[in-house]
Amino acid sequence: MARDYFTQIEKVRQTKPLIHHITNYVTVNDCANITLGIGASPIMADDCNEAGEIASIASALVLNIGTLNERTIPSMLSAGKAANTADIPVVLDPVGAGASKLRNDTVSQLISNISFAVIRGNISEIRYISGLQANTKGVDASLEDQMNLSNNIQLAQQCAQKLNCVIAITGETDVISDGKTTVSVANGVAMLSALTGTGCMCSSLIGSYCGAHKEQPFAATVAALLSMGIAGEIAFEKAGQLGNGSFHMALHDAISTLTPSILLERAKIYENEN
Amino acid sequence: MARDYFTQIEKVRQTKPLIHHITNYVTVNDCANITLGIGASPIMADDCNEAGEIASIASALVLNIGTLNERTIPSMLSAGKAANTADIPVVLDPVGAGASKLRNDTVSQLISNISFAVIRGNISEIRYISGLQANTKGVDASLEDQMNLSNNIQLAQQCAQKLNCVIAITGETDVISDGKTTVSVANGVAMLSALTGTGCMCSSLIGSYCGAHKEQPFAATVAALLSMGIAGEIAFEKAGQLGNGSFHMALHDAISTLTPSILLERAKIYENEN
Amino acid sequence: MARDYFTQIEKVRQTKPLIHHITNYVTVNDCANITLGIGASPIMADDCNEAGEIASIASALVLNIGTLNERTIPSMLSAGKAANTADIPVVLDPVGAGASKLRNDTVSQLISNISFAVIRGNISEIRYISGLQANTKGVDASLEDQMNLSNNIQLAQQCAQKLNCVIAITGETDVISDGKTTVSVANGVAMLSALTGTGCMCSSLIGSYCGAHKEQPFAATVAALLSMGIAGEIAFEKAGQLGNGSFHMALHDAISTLTPSILLERAKIYENEN
Repeated sequence: MARDYFTQIEKVRQTKPLIHHITNYVTVNDCANITLGIGASPIMADDCNEAGEIASIASALVLNIGTLNERTIPSMLSAGKAANTADIPVVLDPVGAGASKLRNDTVSQLISNISFAVIRGNISEIRYISGLQANTKGVDASLEDQMNLSNNIQLAQQCAQKLNCVIAITGETDVISDGKTTVSVANGVAMLSALTGTGCMCSSLIGSYCGAHKEQPFAATVAALLSMGIAGEIAFEKAGQLGNGSFHMALHDAISTLTPSILLERAKIYENEN
Repeated sequence: MARDYFTQIEKVRQTKPLIHHITNYVTVNDCANITLGIGASPIMADDCNEAGEIASIASALVLNIGTLNERTIPSMLSAGKAANTADIPVVLDPVGAGASKLRNDTVSQLISNISFAVIRGNISEIRYISGLQANTKGVDASLEDQMNLSNNIQLAQQCAQKLNCVIAITGETDVISDGKTTVSVANGVAMLSALTGTGCMCSSLIGSYCGAHKEQPFAATVAALLSMGIAGEIAFEKAGQLGNGSFHMALHDAISTLTPSILLERAKIYENEN
Repeated sequence: MARDYFTQIEKVRQTKPLIHHITNYVTVNDCANITLGIGASPIMADDCNEAGEIASIASALVLNIGTLNERTIPSMLSAGKAANTADIPVVLDPVGAGASKLRNDTVSQLISNISFAVIRGNISEIRYISGLQANTKGVDASLEDQMNLSNNIQLAQQCAQKLNCVIAITGETDVISDGKTTVSVANGVAMLSALTGTGCMCSSLIGSYCGAHKEQPFAATVAALLSMGIAGEIAFEKAGQLGNGSFHMALHDAISTLTPSILLERAKIYENEN
């Protein structure tokens, strides 16, 4: 039976949690703005000499390896450990996992050293993380990896059990599992993949919801992906035919004006108990 | 009696001063675009091997520590010293001062080694710089620090005298002081704080105005904050109810279409002679 | 006689080539979004430990020195060499060449070690590269360098012959030469220079077209600059009077909705056989 994924946004807006990001420079502005749009407060601090200190005053930490480099990898480790010590939820976005040895080694190192609350990726990235052979082509999911929904549900469950964290696979239908319960979110539009950073923005939303609901990373992740999917639908209805620029701005408009009743009205959520 | 803060924009547009930035990667695109929007020309060059050389051919330099790191801190010092030698105004944006030891140490180092024309921050950052205990929470001003206006005026005056530069505290009402004269600008809308980078953009505008009016950093700073506040009001009237994305674009629209008569008509400026 | 520069966009959209960028953090988001808008797939990976590996799985590589630094210069060399080995077209955007010793040295090093398919710059940058004295002022072309069209045609031809690659000079009228054939594209609007990154976006479009048409870098470059010029005109007609923010979004709208028939209808192309 359906839980309440619709009113969590209120607590995000009331408590305005500080969300520390160590993230890529391609989509960082959108990540900061969507964090503000959902009601949280972003801070991006990636120097090793302050990453741990900043993480420990935040309400959640988002690690995104989109433009990882030798300077920021130690910062991610430092921030992740500090967040674990302070019992702050940590979200991993393993951008392009499977695409290079550096990314693969870094993902292994992060997963070995940090306890994650949530890992979110596309199907190719999550396949790589779960130990299956992925067909990664750059930072987008390959067609071969976009298997049918029941396979994705099984993969998310197994990976969540193996890594003991919430796993979110985003795509045409999003799948979120904590190893016991698995939820599918069928909201969203294909045009979201025509903008850079919509995956990264999902991870920032997950961090924002987790920051306000630290004991409920599973429900927070569902609420975050529901928010992105529904905002995408609203943006597409308003501006989809105008083109990518207008759709981009309409997406930020929709996130910043979401309400529990909009979420409730539009949600397409399906729960599978294991 | 009121000075003329309204026609300075014309000289920015006529002379198109080159504004060198060493700034953060979160909001750098907005900083470059607002610099162009007001009529100046941005260049972002942060490698230590060219920062000084670039600074010396610029008309103003903006140092913003939002994503400071061990590679760019020496570049900031080098650029700042070169700008001082070449008698080019330098603007400091001490993002998150008070939030980590690295930021605090860096701010001290910058203030000790560089002569600033203007320092702009939110109330928490300026409190930190003035030697008071700040209640910094990330990069946004804390509620506890948002004291009443008369306190802010006093703080700006004292800090300007102590550091011998123009101090600008931005917030609901902006306060600008050179230690003798203090001006309050009551333009702007609360929605500006729902976008990332509006503080950074203020600093880029200050740099742009200073680049065209290097002998008048105080008046240039007032004109810059007036421009941002009024552009925010215009953007809010046009697009505020649509959401953050439309407001963001409308803000750039408003800056790029500002005129002296718009500034004159909407300005809410109050001067306090010390 | 006119070749077909109008239908190449279809193959970009059908094959969705992966375009690796090592580029500046000022305009990187626009570069990623315009790459998606034209139908290709961007990846930005600048660490020396993966740059070569990523380049070798891409369909084209774009090197942009806008915010070059000591960490990314070796990455550019590594990626360029890997792309050459894998026979993947490499595009150089020598942002600010002539403005600092570091930029000049880096451009020399890149040109000495990498075989470029296309080099695109403004007239000041191409003058510098061709060995003439440039009057570089920051990253924008100086007025003195904006010579008459026949001079630019001659410069592009000579530079293309000397460096054995396609040379593209962008400005009021774009000039593209492979040393034998030279084409002028008179599309575009002045307002494009009021946005940061329109030059960088041109280079990303060149990379995108080259990725889908690797045997035809000359035609790909013409098609890319035609796309940008025409998108600029459409954006200006829709949103130019609203201001820079709306124009910016309309530009992305126009790129993402371009069709062969729009390109054919609006193209202002003039060919000069040498």
